[in-house]
Amino acid sequence: MEFRPSIVIKISGKFFDENDASANISFLRQVVSSLAGSYRIGIVSGGGGNARKYIKLGRELKLNESYLDLLGIWASRLNANLIAFALGDLAYPAVPDSLEDFVEKWSSGKVVVTGGFQPGQSTAAVAALVAEAISASKLVVATNVDGVYDKDPRDHADAVMLKELTLSRLREILESSQSVKAGTYELLDPMSMKIIQRSKIQVIVMNYKNISALTSLIKENKAIGSIVIPE
Amino acid sequence: MEFRPSIVIKISGKFFDENDASANISFLRQVVSSLAGSYRIGIVSGGGGNARKYIKLGRELKLNESYLDLLGIWASRLNANLIAFALGDLAYPAVPDSLEDFVEKWSSGKVVVTGGFQPGQSTAAVAALVAEAISASKLVVATNVDGVYDKDPRDHADAVMLKELTLSRLREILESSQSVKAGTYELLDPMSMKIIQRSKIQVIVMNYKNISALTSLIKENKAIGSIVIPE
Amino acid sequence: MEFRPSIVIKISGKFFDENDASANISFLRQVVSSLAGSYRIGIVSGGGGNARKYIKLGRELKLNESYLDLLGIWASRLNANLIAFALGDLAYPAVPDSLEDFVEKWSSGKVVVTGGFQPGQSTAAVAALVAEAISASKLVVATNVDGVYDKDPRDHADAVMLKELTLSRLREILESSQSVKAGTYELLDPMSMKIIQRSKIQVIVMNYKNISALTSLIKENKAIGSIVIPE
Amino acid sequence: MEFRPSIVIKISGKFFDENDASANISFLRQVVSSLAGSYRIGIVSGGGGNARKYIKLGRELKLNESYLDLLGIWASRLNANLIAFALGDLAYPAVPDSLEDFVEKWSSGKVVVTGGFQPGQSTAAVAALVAEAISASKLVVATNVDGVYDKDPRDHADAVMLKELTLSRLREILESSQSVKAGTYELLDPMSMKIIQRSKIQVIVMNYKNISALTSLIKENKAIGSIVIPE
Amino acid sequence: MEFRPSIVIKISGKFFDENDASANISFLRQVVSSLAGSYRIGIVSGGGGNARKYIKLGRELKLNESYLDLLGIWASRLNANLIAFALGDLAYPAVPDSLEDFVEKWSSGKVVVTGGFQPGQSTAAVAALVAEAISASKLVVATNVDGVYDKDPRDHADAVMLKELTLSRLREILESSQSVKAGTYELLDPMSMKIIQRSKIQVIVMNYKNISALTSLIKENKAIGSIVIPE
Amino acid sequence: MEFRPSIVIKISGKFFDENDASANISFLRQVVSSLAGSYRIGIVSGGGGNARKYIKLGRELKLNESYLDLLGIWASRLNANLIAFALGDLAYPAVPDSLEDFVEKWSSGKVVVTGGFQPGQSTAAVAALVAEAISASKLVVATNVDGVYDKDPRDHADAVMLKELTLSRLREILESSQSVKAGTYELLDPMSMKIIQRSKIQVIVMNYKNISALTSLIKENKAIGSIVIPE
Ligand SMILES: Nc1ncnc2c1ncn2[C@@H]1O[C@H](COP(=O)(O)OP(=O)(O)OP(=O)(O)O)[C@@H](O)[C@H]1O
Ligand SMILES: Nc1ncnc2c1ncn2[C@@H]1O[C@H](COP(=O)(O)OP(=O)(O)OP(=O)(O)O)[C@@H](O)[C@H]1O
Ligand SMILES: Nc1ncnc2c1ncn2[C@@H]1O[C@H](COP(=O)(O)OP(=O)(O)OP(=O)(O)O)[C@@H](O)[C@H]1O
Ligand SMILES: Nc1ncnc2c1ncn2[C@@H]1O[C@H](COP(=O)(O)OP(=O)(O)OP(=O)(O)O)[C@@H](O)[C@H]1O
Ligand SMILES: Nc1ncnc2c1ncn2[C@@H]1O[C@H](COP(=O)(O)OP(=O)(O)OP(=O)(O)O)[C@@H](O)[C@H]1O
Ligand SMILES: [Co+2]
Ligand SMILES: [Co+2]
Ligand SMILES: [Co+2]
Ligand SMILES: [Co+2]
Ligand SMILES: [Co+2]
Ligand SMILES: [Co+2]
Ligand SMILES: [Mg+2]
Ligand SMILES: [Mg+2]
Repeated sequence: MEFRPSIVIKISGKFFDENDASANISFLRQVVSSLAGSYRIGIVSGGGGNARKYIKLGRELKLNESYLDLLGIWASRLNANLIAFALGDLAYPAVPDSLEDFVEKWSSGKVVVTGGFQPGQSTAAVAALVAEAISASKLVVATNVDGVYDKDPRDHADAVMLKELTLSRLREILESSQSVKAGTYELLDPMSMKIIQRSKIQVIVMNYKNISALTSLIKENKAIGSIVIPE
Repeated sequence: MEFRPSIVIKISGKFFDENDASANISFLRQVVSSLAGSYRIGIVSGGGGNARKYIKLGRELKLNESYLDLLGIWASRLNANLIAFALGDLAYPAVPDSLEDFVEKWSSGKVVVTGGFQPGQSTAAVAALVAEAISASKLVVATNVDGVYDKDPRDHADAVMLKELTLSRLREILESSQSVKAGTYELLDPMSMKIIQRSKIQVIVMNYKNISALTSLIKENKAIGSIVIPE
Repeated sequence: MEFRPSIVIKISGKFFDENDASANISFLRQVVSSLAGSYRIGIVSGGGGNARKYIKLGRELKLNESYLDLLGIWASRLNANLIAFALGDLAYPAVPDSLEDFVEKWSSGKVVVTGGFQPGQSTAAVAALVAEAISASKLVVATNVDGVYDKDPRDHADAVMLKELTLSRLREILESSQSVKAGTYELLDPMSMKIIQRSKIQVIVMNYKNISALTSLIKENKAIGSIVIPE
Repeated sequence: MEFRPSIVIKISGKFFDENDASANISFLRQVVSSLAGSYRIGIVSGGGGNARKYIKLGRELKLNESYLDLLGIWASRLNANLIAFALGDLAYPAVPDSLEDFVEKWSSGKVVVTGGFQPGQSTAAVAALVAEAISASKLVVATNVDGVYDKDPRDHADAVMLKELTLSRLREILESSQSVKAGTYELLDPMSMKIIQRSKIQVIVMNYKNISALTSLIKENKAIGSIVIPE
Repeated sequence: MEFRPSIVIKISGKFFDENDASANISFLRQVVSSLAGSYRIGIVSGGGGNARKYIKLGRELKLNESYLDLLGIWASRLNANLIAFALGDLAYPAVPDSLEDFVEKWSSGKVVVTGGFQPGQSTAAVAALVAEAISASKLVVATNVDGVYDKDPRDHADAVMLKELTLSRLREILESSQSVKAGTYELLDPMSMKIIQRSKIQVIVMNYKNISALTSLIKENKAIGSIVIPE
Repeated sequence: MEFRPSIVIKISGKFFDENDASANISFLRQVVSSLAGSYRIGIVSGGGGNARKYIKLGRELKLNESYLDLLGIWASRLNANLIAFALGDLAYPAVPDSLEDFVEKWSSGKVVVTGGFQPGQSTAAVAALVAEAISASKLVVATNVDGVYDKDPRDHADAVMLKELTLSRLREILESSQSVKAGTYELLDPMSMKIIQRSKIQVIVMNYKNISALTSLIKENKAIGSIVIPE
């Protein structure tokens, strides 16, 4: 059995809300095609606007936080299905619903694409859990900003992007902005940071607009976005 | 074991796209609450704008018709989950993925909410299959028009709504407009009509804006929308 | 990953009712062995006499059409298991119960053998759905007549076999003989024709007595039975 | 929660091969209807002629004993489905595939109908396993002879039926006739006797032609067939 | 449908390691019997010494943290099975493996007993997730100390038990002692506190030696152990 | 598809109770690594002391034999998970719960590790069932004695180990010591012997302390322990 190192790519749900979503997915498909011979690849997709829409509806209907998170999870699974189908034979053609299910599908040797697993955690936590289970060498977080900033760039025009930072620095930065409500987890929630820390997973945060650059990021270690170093 | 007659309610996917979607669902919840003591209720939800969005993305990515339909099915399951969660203890808290799965969940005695089952057929076909399996006395199709018209009311300003019509008349009317492409099935596709015909299921087509009137439609046989009579 | 084009073989349930059924299956096994290196193969088996027996029993017990079809489906699954077991390591050793389940088992790279999926459709519809999902280049229908005739050969001694015909010609021919009752679907039901049409699947109808000729049909394009051309 | 004692009925596969099979099932349905208010009922069905047919086919195809038994199991599941569907709302509408699955479906409060579970054991062993798991007060074996004889009645015209016998006497009688090949298990195989012994399950062997008498057998302790007393 | 408020009982894995474990489980069974008519009950069991044993073995074999946690989860499932089986008909006879699976089994109306769900979180987090999903009025944590102390009582002889405290006070107390390694989560891990906080779940920490007092704790609001008040 | 002959290794549950359990598992891992290129390997693990502990608890709680066996089965699954996880990519990462499930996971091409399947039979019976299903050339029983003795070596200091014996000789020797109670099956129970006999499986009984010698036993036919010859 040949050995291929494993990587995990977490795709923001916002990726699917963009006007050129299918072009973006098409780029992702090319990246996966070019990497799949040398790497095993897990992909985790967020819920995006759809998650927010259904959580809002659920909140108006007075559902509890658990069911609101489940709606977000089901929205993320719709995105995951789209990616899995788009990857054709490269991918396992069904989306797992838990870490144990992921691990079983992963043993097929194919790319496995997943959405959320469980209430109480973001899809970033899913990505960290998956990366830990498959002993991934890298976890790439592709989102709608260029990397990790010293403050939330949405609210602070003067935020500065950090090319490299430690995990504890990241924790400090994010601590202020965390919310516990369904659908409002920021970038990396506490669960994902706990897993990243205990298993010393290398994290790279990058803009999904540069998704095509992922091939050189992985194959040639090209510096893109922010690299978070576990201590 | 007490006996409650069974009814099936097919909710258009467009129901979830309306601005007042949560109010609509709230009305549906009241209807189901008031009927659940005397009737067993199956609910089938369509995919709506979300289905169309993902099918469009999939088509741009050149997926085959089978996978396009699967994307529509997954979109309808998201809607089905929302209804199931909104119904709380009244409903079975998971969405079946096939007729056999539906039948198993139905045996719980709860309301069962489902989305699509299989490529090649609309959620109206799902509703007919479900109605047949549970020997439903009525299949209510709640959609975004007031009933069955003699021509497609979207294209013909002079279309006339029919308070009552036979299934063969309905077939004639729909025959012109049918398409076989994923996501474009009209009102009732050939599979649903075949099932309705062979099992002589009574169908009522009504506007989901009047969803609150469903209680009197069912309990008092109040005339709403169009009634389709199987021969 | 090497590429092998996909084909689907639909085996009539009558195949299992013949006196020399095991010899027939043995020939099928040889065909599959000789093709499996160059083609991915899906097999769909009908229910045959067993389906008819259980549907008859069910009808005497006044089961509804949905459960009658389910009995036919379970009969076809027994046949499918026999073929899957006979194929040994070449085949996935379990029979899927829906298109989604088929697709998942198909990703194993093995031959997948299936029976029916859902009430309201024949196993020919299953074969078409499977062929569409796996983008099969050919769907071979192996049945108890030599090909498509201009009339039902069972009833008309003067029926003439057609070596080649269009899908619309086939629709015309079959339209008269279609029944909607469980267990009585003819050759190709409306669902199968709809799928064949929309995905332009090439269909070949042949006698299962010539099953050994399938290798040259597939590998050398030898003309056997009738070829139905989608427009 | 009201308490209803549990009973298990093992129906010979030969029951489904009789000319008046649907009448027989109809009688069984009446028995179950009249008992279901006061008893919880598990039903196990054998494979009958169908099992033997498919095992014979499999043997001609040189399948191993494990797969031959699996074919017999699938045949018994077809019979089990027929009974389950015939019982309508009284029964759980799906057939379990293992003891653990049985136990889960049993918790629904419904009649559960099952066929075989595993190679290497007869459906009589399944019946004993089920009876043990649900702490059944009685296991009724309905077969094609009137009870237990002092020799195999098929081969010995002078065999005498025993109204009452101990389990060790039964073991002695059956020991001569046991075979280990798939599909040839007699009346009660060693696994079933082991379970019956360790859990001291009361067994009654009766002719399925008298199936209607089951109500008085259960409700009024009427003496029918042979009663086997565990020591 | 009658309404019964829901409660969750989290049983320490250490409960199963005690010499008088079966007596303890017997008391728990009595408590559940006396409460089940008026309350719906979810039970979560920890992994105890067994979890620690297998995690230690796994660590010696150099498994990653994800698989170590899975071993702990499987150990907790063994305990959960024991409780479920001991509760007989009161409980659902199978242990769920995720929150979604729990919710589905919960809809049976029975007591549902679960062990762990997912790597990266303790069974206390499972208990919180379950309590949130079923909108439980109370979450009782039965462990091997009498309640929450101002310091870890294992290490500090002078630790003082607090009859009542706020969630933020609890967070402060526990913050020092948290570890992220598999199998070493203390009392309540961050995930459980996050869920308790966002859904304002009332938590009671008590000694499992007093398990029999649970009936009066629930029915008569008797003060036992420590009560943690969400703000 | 390359052909690799199949072997089954049954590991005593006592293996996991030894002080040097992780070293033992490590040796097993080396053996499997060195064999996996040339052989397909099934592994069955017993329940050991853990099974006995939980069965004892269950017995004190008055569970029936079926549930006691299920507790033993769940204990054996914990051991099976540990082995499966320890084997990493070589093994299928989930433990099957029935023979049919085993067969499906086996088709992955990986090592499959299983615990118990069903009440009423030992994990030795599981091993025999698995060996039969996969047409294994050898079934190795690794236990806490050096081989088969002419009497139970635990009780008889003068017992003599037999390097070679027939299956009927083994049956004679074991007949005295068999018990039917849950958790007390000896070496090989009647079910396992029935399967071994009908499928003529070659059995080798050896001490798990020599587990490293398995490579030469398999590859070079080195004589270790006792060899049981089916007639
Ligand atoms: N210090 C920071 N650096 C970078 N981004 C930050 C920072 N603090 C907060 N953010 C926010 O995190 C957002 C990305 O996380 P968010 O959860 O919104 O998206 P996502 O997880 O990629 O998508 P989804 O949750 O829809 O799948 C950015 O848009 C940014 O506003
Ligand atoms: N124009 C036609 N040409 C060929 N066959 C036709 C035609 N019209 C009707 N038939 C009938 O179709 C039959 C084959 O379809 P049928 O559904 O009976 O078998 P099958 O699908 O192969 O088997 P099963 O349904 O048992 O799996 C033929 O036996 C023939 O009588
Ligand atoms: N001593 C005996 N008393 C009664 N029947 C016996 C005896 N010995 C052998 N038999 C045979 O057992 C048969 C019933 O067992 P058998 O396994 O054939 O049927 P079944 O289990 O009821 O059906 P199936 O296996 O098809 O489900 C009887 O037909 C009879 O010939
Ligand atoms: N402030 C505190 N008050 C009470 N207990 C504390 C405190 N800080 C730490 N602990 C420890 O928490 C332990 C209980 O948590 P622990 O996770 O060990 O057990 P559990 O979760 O009940 O069991 P298991 O994890 O085996 O299921 C106590 O034994 C105690 O030593
Ligand atoms: N004739 C015999 N030769 C060898 N061992 C025998 C014999 N008779 C009885 N035994 C007993 O069989 C035991 C092995 O079987 P046992 O079922 O106890 O262990 P196992 O099946 O390997 O483990 P577990 O059931 O825990 O998985 C030996 O310890 C021995 O005492
Ligand atoms: Co996010
Ligand atoms: Co529609
Ligand atoms: Co047909
Ligand atoms: Co039999
Ligand atoms: Co704990
Ligand atoms: Co043993
Ligand atoms: Mg029998
Ligand atoms: Mg703990």
